[in-house]
Amino acid sequence: MPEFLTLLPPDEARSLLLAHLSQLQADSETIAVASSLGRVLAEDIVAPHPLPDFRRATVDGYAVRAADTHGASDSLPAYLNLVGEVPMGDTPAFAVGLGQCALIHTGGMLPNGTDAVVMLEYTQQIGRDSRDRRLPVPTVPTNAVAQTEIEIFRAVADGENVIRIGEDVAQGQVVQAKGRVLRPAEIGGLMALGITHIQVMKKLRVGLISTGDEVVDPSQSPRPGQVRDVNTYTLGALIEKSGGEAIRYGIIADQFDALKEAATKALSECEVVIITAGSSASTRDMTADVIRLLGVPGVLVHGINTRPGKPTILGVCNGKAVIGLPGNPVSALVNGYLFVVPVIEKLLGELPKLKPTVFAKSTVNLPSQAGREDWWPVKLSLASGRAGLRGEREFSADPIFSKSNLIFSLAAADGLLRIPSDATGISAGEVVEVLLL
Amino acid sequence: MPEFLTLLPPDEARSLLLAHLSQLQADSETIAVASSLGRVLAEDIVAPHPLPDFRRATVDGYAVRAADTHGASDSLPAYLNLVGEVPMGDTPAFAVGLGQCALIHTGGMLPNGTDAVVMLEYTQQIGRDSRDRRLPVPTVPTNAVAQTEIEIFRAVADGENVIRIGEDVAQGQVVQAKGRVLRPAEIGGLMALGITHIQVMKKLRVGLISTGDEVVDPSQSPRPGQVRDVNTYTLGALIEKSGGEAIRYGIIADQFDALKEAATKALSECEVVIITAGSSASTRDMTADVIRLLGVPGVLVHGINTRPGKPTILGVCNGKAVIGLPGNPVSALVNGYLFVVPVIEKLLGELPKLKPTVFAKSTVNLPSQAGREDWWPVKLSLASGRAGLRGEREFSADPIFSKSNLIFSLAAADGLLRIPSDATGISAGEVVEVLLL
Repeated sequence: MPEFLTLLPPDEARSLLLAHLSQLQADSETIAVASSLGRVLAEDIVAPHPLPDFRRATVDGYAVRAADTHGASDSLPAYLNLVGEVPMGDTPAFAVGLGQCALIHTGGMLPNGTDAVVMLEYTQQIGRDSRDRRLPVPTVPTNAVAQTEIEIFRAVADGENVIRIGEDVAQGQVVQAKGRVLRPAEIGGLMALGITHIQVMKKLRVGLISTGDEVVDPSQSPRPGQVRDVNTYTLGALIEKSGGEAIRYGIIADQFDALKEAATKALSECEVVIITAGSSASTRDMTADVIRLLGVPGVLVHGINTRPGKPTILGVCNGKAVIGLPGNPVSALVNGYLFVVPVIEKLLGELPKLKPTVFAKSTVNLPSQAGREDWWPVKLSLASGRAGLRGEREFSADPIFSKSNLIFSLAAADGLLRIPSDATGISAGEVVEVLLL
Repeated sequence: MPEFLTLLPPDEARSLLLAHLSQLQADSETIAVASSLGRVLAEDIVAPHPLPDFRRATVDGYAVRAADTHGASDSLPAYLNLVGEVPMGDTPAFAVGLGQCALIHTGGMLPNGTDAVVMLEYTQQIGRDSRDRRLPVPTVPTNAVAQTEIEIFRAVADGENVIRIGEDVAQGQVVQAKGRVLRPAEIGGLMALGITHIQVMKKLRVGLISTGDEVVDPSQSPRPGQVRDVNTYTLGALIEKSGGEAIRYGIIADQFDALKEAATKALSECEVVIITAGSSASTRDMTADVIRLLGVPGVLVHGINTRPGKPTILGVCNGKAVIGLPGNPVSALVNGYLFVVPVIEKLLGELPKLKPTVFAKSTVNLPSQAGREDWWPVKLSLASGRAGLRGEREFSADPIFSKSNLIFSLAAADGLLRIPSDATGISAGEVVEVLLL
């Protein structure tokens, strides 16, 4: 059958594929939060208690009743009796009455009777050098009736310099939703709530099959005419980076039965199967024919209006994604970013996240064909030195001109410059979006 | 000693710290390239042979002598005798003479005597339906004198549709430099050259010490007035993400000798030590005092003109970095991005790399203080729906207003908006740089 009867726009092709896939169910596991970086939450996390669960000072100073400071100023200070020092990590053993105050450190618990904290800078202990801004020493024994008086030079409002109970999160609040990819801040939030183990999605198993009579394992010395397998490893690293686990099914010769057997085994053990074609047209057709046999609906898209990547095949077999990628290393990896990564994200149920992109000015004119989306490997450089006053940091994007078979053109690139399908090229100096590799 | 006698600008503080540190030597290990994603190369990689090491076709078609096609057109085709088919992954057993051609597949080796490939689209096998663009079948037996004639409708130039020997990399070329962080494309390039094992920098050991009488392990139920340790885990994840290995030294009470002992042990076992202070002023001073005792030159910077993060302490003790971070979880993590990550990158000898940032319009006015650099947690959203024709995708940045103690304000953020130190704030609608978290 002739290839590429119709070439689908890449966005449409991707949507069609994703529409046939549903988020995996019941593929979660329990792991320690301390080792959960980059994993995907498989459950909503609900706060078991408020955070903080006691009123905390946000500054060093004196815990007071705000009403006692009303009108206080440099020229007319308020005078409060010091009744104690709040111990760190414990409940104050005393209350603070009218006209009284207590020494408190950042993070300390407000004593009963107080509702605000005056910063140390705006106070002075009677009889102490005003230039000495350290906390008063020796500290006042708690519960003792102190003779020490504190001058207060600023009024505070009720709640000032205090974190309220539940101000960070309320009890019962969903603090992290299913599908969240865990970053350092999420891990910290879970720990703050005492949640040390969570349900995350298991790493997605993605099977990788390389085909081609000319392809040998990287550990072998190729005979003349042979090349080493690159795609299993570039795609494997991309899968690992994207929350998957790459399962390698080796290099299969250009024989229909051998490919069908390997693909059947991979499909039974994995959620996604990637077949990178040998470079000849006959192998590419063979991949499509195998996908048709593996399950329904089979091939959804054969031929995408993108460069590189025109021969990409998108299929779904009995609910699992089977993707045929071109054998050229650059085409295979670029199309891995465009089609494999979104499949992993969908199956793991990831919430939408931002792709790392920068905007850059192209250094040259780049032609393109209307209707086709082009992706050019580019080197990025800072066009105007450091970031400017308002962050107007400007990048130049310098396309690497080379044939799409040359893996080192991609290894030399910082990112992929996208020429949208409704453009007929871009001009030197035009601002374009670059996906960081 | 009073804190913050002088507040250093953050760029200056970071430069001062980095100037006291040198790239680690002799801390490399050999690993499999297949498991090297994100690691840092500890050696220059030199190509042991050219790539490709034979002339390869980039299209399906006929290998020819370019001279034989000169002047060929639809109306005046050239006629060439088919002498064989190039086998995939092997040397053609025949040469191609004057007026002859050979069937070749993408990736096949050019037979002796040929110097270009004519795409199949521009050819026709005599006696075959011109609409059938599949490769001719049955294939011609190699080495046989064939009676088959091929019509060529386009002229090709010498080298057209051919990858030359060494076109990707030349033998002896440094294909990847020491300090390179390995991405999928680099891994592919190494495999293409048969380099399956490499020297990478060992993961950098970073010791983490939490201090504070009020701090307990996340697995414990805090008594009133206590809080769980967050910083060990947020910073641990950040270190892991940045090429380090976090070694946890636990939570140390606010006692000078205990902190000194823990820091001494950590410094002897790690290349970098991070001490997150208890929140009181006295603990913060204690950290500086301990750093002074651990080695020379000791404290380099105490107090940085940044928010959050003013109390950050940067020190170097006998060639190792010791950093004191504020106890507030948000301050600690933001300053981890600003000061710990660059230290890891410098010690591992990483080549400069791009930080993932986006430019966004602030939704509100944000005040700032001239001379101070501010970092605001922000939510990002696409302001104008999908990417436009020329990639003019526009983000809105919506600052999360909350106290810097609240870890969930950071967990809810997509990035950190930077207000440069020479700005006195930004206006709603202004474009700012946002560092993705």
